[in-house]
Amino acid sequence: MSDLPDVSGLTIGILGGTGDQGKGLARRFAIAGQKVIIGSRNADRAQAAADELGNGVRGLDNSACATGSDIVIIAVPWDGHKATCESLKDDLAGKIVVDCVNPLGFDKQGAYALPVEEGSAAQQAAAILTESRVVGAFHHVSAVLLLDPDVAEIDLDVLVLGEDREATDTVQALAERIPGVRGIFGGRLRNAHQVEAFVANLISINRRYKAHAGIRLTDV
Amino acid sequence: MSDLPDVSGLTIGILGGTGDQGKGLARRFAIAGQKVIIGSRNADRAQAAADELGNGVRGLDNSACATGSDIVIIAVPWDGHKATCESLKDDLAGKIVVDCVNPLGFDKQGAYALPVEEGSAAQQAAAILTESRVVGAFHHVSAVLLLDPDVAEIDLDVLVLGEDREATDTVQALAERIPGVRGIFGGRLRNAHQVEAFVANLISINRRYKAHAGIRLTDV
Repeated sequence: MSDLPDVSGLTIGILGGTGDQGKGLARRFAIAGQKVIIGSRNADRAQAAADELGNGVRGLDNSACATGSDIVIIAVPWDGHKATCESLKDDLAGKIVVDCVNPLGFDKQGAYALPVEEGSAAQQAAAILTESRVVGAFHHVSAVLLLDPDVAEIDLDVLVLGEDREATDTVQALAERIPGVRGIFGGRLRNAHQVEAFVANLISINRRYKAHAGIRLTDV
Repeated sequence: MSDLPDVSGLTIGILGGTGDQGKGLARRFAIAGQKVIIGSRNADRAQAAADELGNGVRGLDNSACATGSDIVIIAVPWDGHKATCESLKDDLAGKIVVDCVNPLGFDKQGAYALPVEEGSAAQQAAAILTESRVVGAFHHVSAVLLLDPDVAEIDLDVLVLGEDREATDTVQALAERIPGVRGIFGGRLRNAHQVEAFVANLISINRRYKAHAGIRLTDV
């Protein structure tokens, strides 16, 4: 773990940063001292979310967010995922792109995994963003906990999936900027589907045990 | 957790009990004082595995194992899964059937999830065994650790999936007969695929970190 790179000087962009997951990650990275840009299709909404968070967070439209950041996190709803990737392909070229989108459906019985033609949201991003290094991560982190000012540490291992070791190491280091979190390599992108889909299980677990469940890997 | 039923008087059958996963589970349940029957297509091979384990474990052919047990664990290789379920449908009627099979493929890049027409091994079992209560569990437990006489406790939450609360509670209680293990409800069978497939990620994690990784749920 100690061999992970120093990412403290990098600017983190969060597309869909006005949603709870994106805003929660923005908040934690900014508190850790990271430069953070929230992206939204509407720059005014991005700025409003940034103002709410303080800690130097800026708000820009998605394209400016992408070009102005070193690492870009995609935290948009699943139904806007493909269009977001396609429209920002050039802006995201050369960057590490972190996909944390969970393609889920919901009905009376709870949550379930949606089929994805490419296999997973992360693989869909990788198929479109051929000039970027796509990594999957931050699927299991609870937006409620990220946004709760009374939660100082988050008891969670963030699984980081990807093909490029430098990129996954960088995102593991980024995950560890959140107090309590470990960044753990979780495999290649072809094994991202089950990590994304596992959020459906966490939702069932949260319902049964009245929890905000996360996971820890044992023996690591 | 304290509301789980007492399962100490139940007989546990393990189909495919001559493989490492099945033999490891048989060993742990027998040490815990459970009556255990190992099943195999070949009764002599089942008896040989039982003799190796001691602790009162018996070995029978699969059909006799199924009919003589209260809870039956399917621990056969994936390529024999469907045929095993079909051939034992009548023997398994009325019983709790625990599927711990992980449909995985392997190539130079490691392990990956195989597509399953029914969605998952557990759903395939449920589709065939319409007179049984099918539960998914024990996917992530390391056979190496189960069989290691120097390992007294296993640091793992066993995720238990199913539709029937009494059946999942019973299998959670069975999981907790292994020292160190918690049995945690993990959702409905339609969310079993990602739990099965996650073994591919554990294999990647084990390779990277030289570990026998398992998972723990936090905040539960």
